[in-house]
Amino acid sequence: MKNPIPDYLDEVITALRDEHSGDVAGYIPQLAQAEPNVFGAAITTVKGHTYAAGDSDRLFSIQSISKPFAYAAALIDRGMDRVCQTVGVEPSGEAFNELSLEGETHRPKNPMINAGAIATHSLVGTSGGTRTERLLEFFSALAGRELNIDQDVCGSEFEHAHRNLAIGHMLKNYTVLDGDVHDIVLGYTQQCSILVSAKDLSMMTATLAAGGVQPLTGERLMEPGTARQVMAVMAGAGMYDFAGEWLTKVGIPAKSGVSGGMIGVLPNQVGISAFSPRLDSHGNSHRGRLVFERLSADMGMHLFGVDQGNDQSVAVEADGQDVTYHLYGTVQFLTAADLLHRMSAAEAPGHAVIDASRVDAFTDVGRRMTLEGMRRLNLDGWEISLRDPFGRLPDPDFGDGNYPSVIEHRPGQPDARG
Amino acid sequence: MKNPIPDYLDEVITALRDEHSGDVAGYIPQLAQAEPNVFGAAITTVKGHTYAAGDSDRLFSIQSISKPFAYAAALIDRGMDRVCQTVGVEPSGEAFNELSLEGETHRPKNPMINAGAIATHSLVGTSGGTRTERLLEFFSALAGRELNIDQDVCGSEFEHAHRNLAIGHMLKNYTVLDGDVHDIVLGYTQQCSILVSAKDLSMMTATLAAGGVQPLTGERLMEPGTARQVMAVMAGAGMYDFAGEWLTKVGIPAKSGVSGGMIGVLPNQVGISAFSPRLDSHGNSHRGRLVFERLSADMGMHLFGVDQGNDQSVAVEADGQDVTYHLYGTVQFLTAADLLHRMSAAEAPGHAVIDASRVDAFTDVGRRMTLEGMRRLNLDGWEISLRDPFGRLPDPDFGDGNYPSVIEHRPGQPDARG
Amino acid sequence: MKNPIPDYLDEVITALRDEHSGDVAGYIPQLAQAEPNVFGAAITTVKGHTYAAGDSDRLFSIQSISKPFAYAAALIDRGMDRVCQTVGVEPSGEAFNELSLEGETHRPKNPMINAGAIATHSLVGTSGGTRTERLLEFFSALAGRELNIDQDVCGSEFEHAHRNLAIGHMLKNYTVLDGDVHDIVLGYTQQCSILVSAKDLSMMTATLAAGGVQPLTGERLMEPGTARQVMAVMAGAGMYDFAGEWLTKVGIPAKSGVSGGMIGVLPNQVGISAFSPRLDSHGNSHRGRLVFERLSADMGMHLFGVDQGNDQSVAVEADGQDVTYHLYGTVQFLTAADLLHRMSAAEAPGHAVIDASRVDAFTDVGRRMTLEGMRRLNLDGWEISLRDPFGRLPDPDFGDGNYPSVIEHRPGQPDARG
Amino acid sequence: MKNPIPDYLDEVITALRDEHSGDVAGYIPQLAQAEPNVFGAAITTVKGHTYAAGDSDRLFSIQSISKPFAYAAALIDRGMDRVCQTVGVEPSGEAFNELSLEGETHRPKNPMINAGAIATHSLVGTSGGTRTERLLEFFSALAGRELNIDQDVCGSEFEHAHRNLAIGHMLKNYTVLDGDVHDIVLGYTQQCSILVSAKDLSMMTATLAAGGVQPLTGERLMEPGTARQVMAVMAGAGMYDFAGEWLTKVGIPAKSGVSGGMIGVLPNQVGISAFSPRLDSHGNSHRGRLVFERLSADMGMHLFGVDQGNDQSVAVEADGQDVTYHLYGTVQFLTAADLLHRMSAAEAPGHAVIDASRVDAFTDVGRRMTLEGMRRLNLDGWEISLRDPFGRLPDPDFGDGNYPSVIEHRPGQPDARG
Repeated sequence: MKNPIPDYLDEVITALRDEHSGDVAGYIPQLAQAEPNVFGAAITTVKGHTYAAGDSDRLFSIQSISKPFAYAAALIDRGMDRVCQTVGVEPSGEAFNELSLEGETHRPKNPMINAGAIATHSLVGTSGGTRTERLLEFFSALAGRELNIDQDVCGSEFEHAHRNLAIGHMLKNYTVLDGDVHDIVLGYTQQCSILVSAKDLSMMTATLAAGGVQPLTGERLMEPGTARQVMAVMAGAGMYDFAGEWLTKVGIPAKSGVSGGMIGVLPNQVGISAFSPRLDSHGNSHRGRLVFERLSADMGMHLFGVDQGNDQSVAVEADGQDVTYHLYGTVQFLTAADLLHRMSAAEAPGHAVIDASRVDAFTDVGRRMTLEGMRRLNLDGWEISLRDPFGRLPDPDFGDGNYPSVIEHRPGQPDARG
Repeated sequence: MKNPIPDYLDEVITALRDEHSGDVAGYIPQLAQAEPNVFGAAITTVKGHTYAAGDSDRLFSIQSISKPFAYAAALIDRGMDRVCQTVGVEPSGEAFNELSLEGETHRPKNPMINAGAIATHSLVGTSGGTRTERLLEFFSALAGRELNIDQDVCGSEFEHAHRNLAIGHMLKNYTVLDGDVHDIVLGYTQQCSILVSAKDLSMMTATLAAGGVQPLTGERLMEPGTARQVMAVMAGAGMYDFAGEWLTKVGIPAKSGVSGGMIGVLPNQVGISAFSPRLDSHGNSHRGRLVFERLSADMGMHLFGVDQGNDQSVAVEADGQDVTYHLYGTVQFLTAADLLHRMSAAEAPGHAVIDASRVDAFTDVGRRMTLEGMRRLNLDGWEISLRDPFGRLPDPDFGDGNYPSVIEHRPGQPDARG
Repeated sequence: MKNPIPDYLDEVITALRDEHSGDVAGYIPQLAQAEPNVFGAAITTVKGHTYAAGDSDRLFSIQSISKPFAYAAALIDRGMDRVCQTVGVEPSGEAFNELSLEGETHRPKNPMINAGAIATHSLVGTSGGTRTERLLEFFSALAGRELNIDQDVCGSEFEHAHRNLAIGHMLKNYTVLDGDVHDIVLGYTQQCSILVSAKDLSMMTATLAAGGVQPLTGERLMEPGTARQVMAVMAGAGMYDFAGEWLTKVGIPAKSGVSGGMIGVLPNQVGISAFSPRLDSHGNSHRGRLVFERLSADMGMHLFGVDQGNDQSVAVEADGQDVTYHLYGTVQFLTAADLLHRMSAAEAPGHAVIDASRVDAFTDVGRRMTLEGMRRLNLDGWEISLRDPFGRLPDPDFGDGNYPSVIEHRPGQPDARG
Repeated sequence: MKNPIPDYLDEVITALRDEHSGDVAGYIPQLAQAEPNVFGAAITTVKGHTYAAGDSDRLFSIQSISKPFAYAAALIDRGMDRVCQTVGVEPSGEAFNELSLEGETHRPKNPMINAGAIATHSLVGTSGGTRTERLLEFFSALAGRELNIDQDVCGSEFEHAHRNLAIGHMLKNYTVLDGDVHDIVLGYTQQCSILVSAKDLSMMTATLAAGGVQPLTGERLMEPGTARQVMAVMAGAGMYDFAGEWLTKVGIPAKSGVSGGMIGVLPNQVGISAFSPRLDSHGNSHRGRLVFERLSADMGMHLFGVDQGNDQSVAVEADGQDVTYHLYGTVQFLTAADLLHRMSAAEAPGHAVIDASRVDAFTDVGRRMTLEGMRRLNLDGWEISLRDPFGRLPDPDFGDGNYPSVIEHRPGQPDARG
């Protein structure tokens, strides 16, 4: 069967191809020469499937879209505390190139504005190799292929980097920056000159959506808490002075770059990208923005989308003294809360079967809550069985040393659901 | 079985009871006289279960927590366009009592600051009855019980309402406000004086989390798009100049009030509330804030929490020419995308069974994508069956007039999963 | 002889009469109905001579030009310390209607912006009578005739006073304001509605230029220090965000009003006024501003004008052992410093005559320095005579109990120079 | 006779010597090592007499006090239009090191803040020689002796010049700056490192007070309009966020430097300086500020000081048909206006004698007005004589080809008044 999702993306690209508003960024020749009508988009799910349309393999310099990923690298390399000491997390409500330092600390307000991105760049890296090497390696791991720097763009951009040099010297003045200003700003310019395609970007972003696991290689590239931090900062500060309208109307935490790229993320779901060099008055890709608006409207992709009805992940089947609690999908707080609610309705003790055969995963909280429910039923006199053919709940110790009396577990059996 | 969730909440309350930092708001006697050590919290799930601990029935004036709900009322009564014409959605990055009007339009930046809340209040209501009556009725419907105004608090607060009167006159000056300034500010003061308990607030907030359906009564009080708008604005502007740190660290869109209340929402999951009158330097309830930090850390409640592993909602079972696609839970974009991915891997045509017997619901997008997959397989020569005992996918027209050849549907049979 | 100064003013008025740029203020009907082409100007010297041209007797509401005079009244009625506690003296660099409160104190930045003018108004007055009565009386004394309020303008303006009411309530909120907000803003509106002509304004302003002495009546209406304070504040804050360009280019501390009036002051020299209702984009009278530019350019009227060559006010005539020190004009620091310089060049003691017959006045400092010089010469062995036919230096005690040996003083003789 | 003015200055220095508040600037070792208790002051009159006390010959780096003089140099070298195109004249109301660029033009707001001073520096100079050489030469001419640069201070300061480099790059980014950022900031640092004494500074400042004529050498170093511009900008912007309080309380346009120097100017009167390295919280020399407060209070030195009584510079003596108009001092607008007022009171034609024998100078305006009065009297039938023994009114053409009938002019006779 031909997958209809690329067809849908094709249709979106086709529908928007006639949008010719806006102009290509013109402050350096290398960007001004971009073909204005190139247009591509891609979606990568947290399961690692990428759907693309248009010029989704066309390479362009990543520019400001590098900011969230460099922020992730800094968090990995230096830890949350050290990074937050140097760069804040508050929205600035200002354009990307404002200084926006915090009153007393002189920290840049967040890593999405240039000041914060330059400070973030300075924090990247470990003893061996340069900051730029570190970022190139990290971005390549996120994209799942080896990326390169466009040296022409980098050289030309550095010649026009007076604003960033100004920011660098100001940060140095406030001792926010360690190291040589010229080197750091040059490194930051290299970071912005890494060449990516729309497909690369959707893959990189899907890694954030998946909590740090590269969805194709399965490699964990950062801790879930790091991905969470990056996405939360993108949600608040990614769209600069446009954050509120974007978050309400589109609802996809996003970041755009001056070369025409744009990414968006929905946690646990997808990474999205678009590429079209003509920019609107906010400096975002005009057609890129329209792609996101279409995806939000057509596909219900919205951080606060709640129109999918009640997610009912627990079913109870009573048969005389036997009660079976069927669990489905991912058992997180809400599912486990529902399970506990139903368990606490149980009256005369009998035999309780917890059926985890349809469960994909327990979150840490979901596991603890489920085991606590089993412990309490057990204390109330119930006999507890666990049906867990795929081992979703290994070592089901109630926490008091007790275990379910019967555990159906067939580790040797292939998982039919894979 | 005794439900462990209240026990957990009790433990949180107990652990934080010795936190005595901060002071009760003192600008009017009625607030200054509040018992400083009262402390309660509540969680209501979108399924309508409320868990509470401490002084969760204690009544207090709702104050600024009224803002998101009044915003919902204005959206209902006047429509999105009219409201957005008068009040913006951008974070102000400033304290609650700053004027924060937008440059050219003079719109208040968002409905969470006082200027925006006063303008929002002016938009509430329909022909019959006062704005205050309308809000009292709406808030009561949200809480699921009849609420009242604390006239003493209201009277005293209006005596000290010089800042709000200043804001009102300034908005009137810019013709942002229709009507009499005195009346509107008085009405807004009444809105802030509505008496609620922590339990009321968690229920009201859970209605937002559930996309507008009061979880206990099942009554739809607003459209999903309205609830979405309110939650998105809370995420960006609810914590004023503290928004970024709150969104990254706690990750629960929230709103606090000067009397010590605090609410938080996770879409599709829960409404949360806390109440403790001592305020920190940001004007938020000190212990209230700690409750939210605990819930986020302990329970993994975070808008960008992604540590629950991959949510695998599609399973494929192949048996000769027969392939069964098992679906689980809510079939939204991601699940449907996974289904389509698997369908597109199918080779020689045979018999495809779509098993929706474990499905809770299809979102609109999920339904359309699933039917499109069935249509395409059918076009490729497959025979399509649908197993849908609970009618989750009624009228399964492929979009081209074709239907699955066999539909297992037993509408008369009781739903074992309910 | 026909005085050429009015001819010059006539010529200026004629030359600028064809300037029709700008619009009459339109926010209330009473101002919108002003005849747009009315045009007048007047100059009053500190000696009390008024030169006028055009419609210089036409009455109009004083509006913001009342601010410096009301500030003078508050300084008189409450004293410098009390007033400065409530209203600052720093330029705001913002438009007249900005709130511009100081960070910590919440004082309005200066008395020329509305916030400062409203706070200033609240400080005016003594026990008997209203603030408005006090100001009407004071402004009348300054103008040298009885002034009245335009009740129509006042009534209409108060109906549109939402911005000022906003400011008033905000000041009340910060306890900057004592008393009822409504009453104070109404009183301030009355203050702005006092009817004046260009001639009235030049006379009122000349009183400031003369250090507080009404130049026609000779009555001292305020202390020199008060007039100094008012002029200094006008210099810094009178032209709002236009202060720097005005001070450099025109160099005449000034204040304008929305009805088209404008005043300017040069200390010790003149008060100037112009009236023409069409306003430029800064809200200043367009032709009024041009009048000031002409006067500055043509007449060398500039606070920092220094093109008049060296002012030589001391002449020394030596005749054998006799040395006569001729003094001229006003003997202030510079003249006295010159005298002391010349005295200190004196060698062998002889007879020194200090000739004050051409002196108009000694400043306090000039007097002390002159007497000190005489004392020192005397100590060096000189015989000291004072020629002072008009008693400019009464009681010429050297400070050590000694006096000039000969004093030519003919109090009975008429002063030829009067 | 011993001149008492130095004694007075000595007394001021002695009285303030025990003021030990504040700290020496510590951001570079060369300034941190300054002897904290050094203390000097000097006054130079426009006649070229310098009075000094304390350590008034001690050399220190001029720092920000160079700003007004470099501004003068730029005005001389490039003209008013070109300079004003690059640097504004509006007060910034902010600290010296704020960026304070104007909204649309990105011009620095004024030449007294660092951004404006750096832009100003870039405008200095002509084809031959460096900017630094030009300034060294110009400052030397102002001081009347050859000045030098402290290379140690300069080198150390440039190492810490990150803020100024930031400003330079930002100005370059906005194309406010021509040339290499590094070179300009280095040149500006050299400008700030020129060594001066308090005596040098009072002489340099007196040149401004004298309208551009170096009072000792008599050399005209700039046009009066240039000196006027510099003084007017100092008045508005010289004291940064302290401008209003300084202008009202002290009333002497001033500029201070981080090394502890301070200058002040009163047009047509004096240049003043003080030096004491301990700085107050505004970054001004603590004792320097107190010196200025003393001078203002004791000596009546205040731009808006008006307590010297009426300056009566015209006397009329009538003897039958003969009327003599005695003029004194400098005949500027006010004196000439008085003369015209008295002439216009003349009735039956007779013989009018204009006695200019006591006149120091006519300003351009004064000359034209005086001749116009003579012309009009003449037209009315009067016979006009001019008594002008020292040629203060050369070529007294009435403007219509007529001359006074009798001119007493004795060019050969020595001027008794010199």
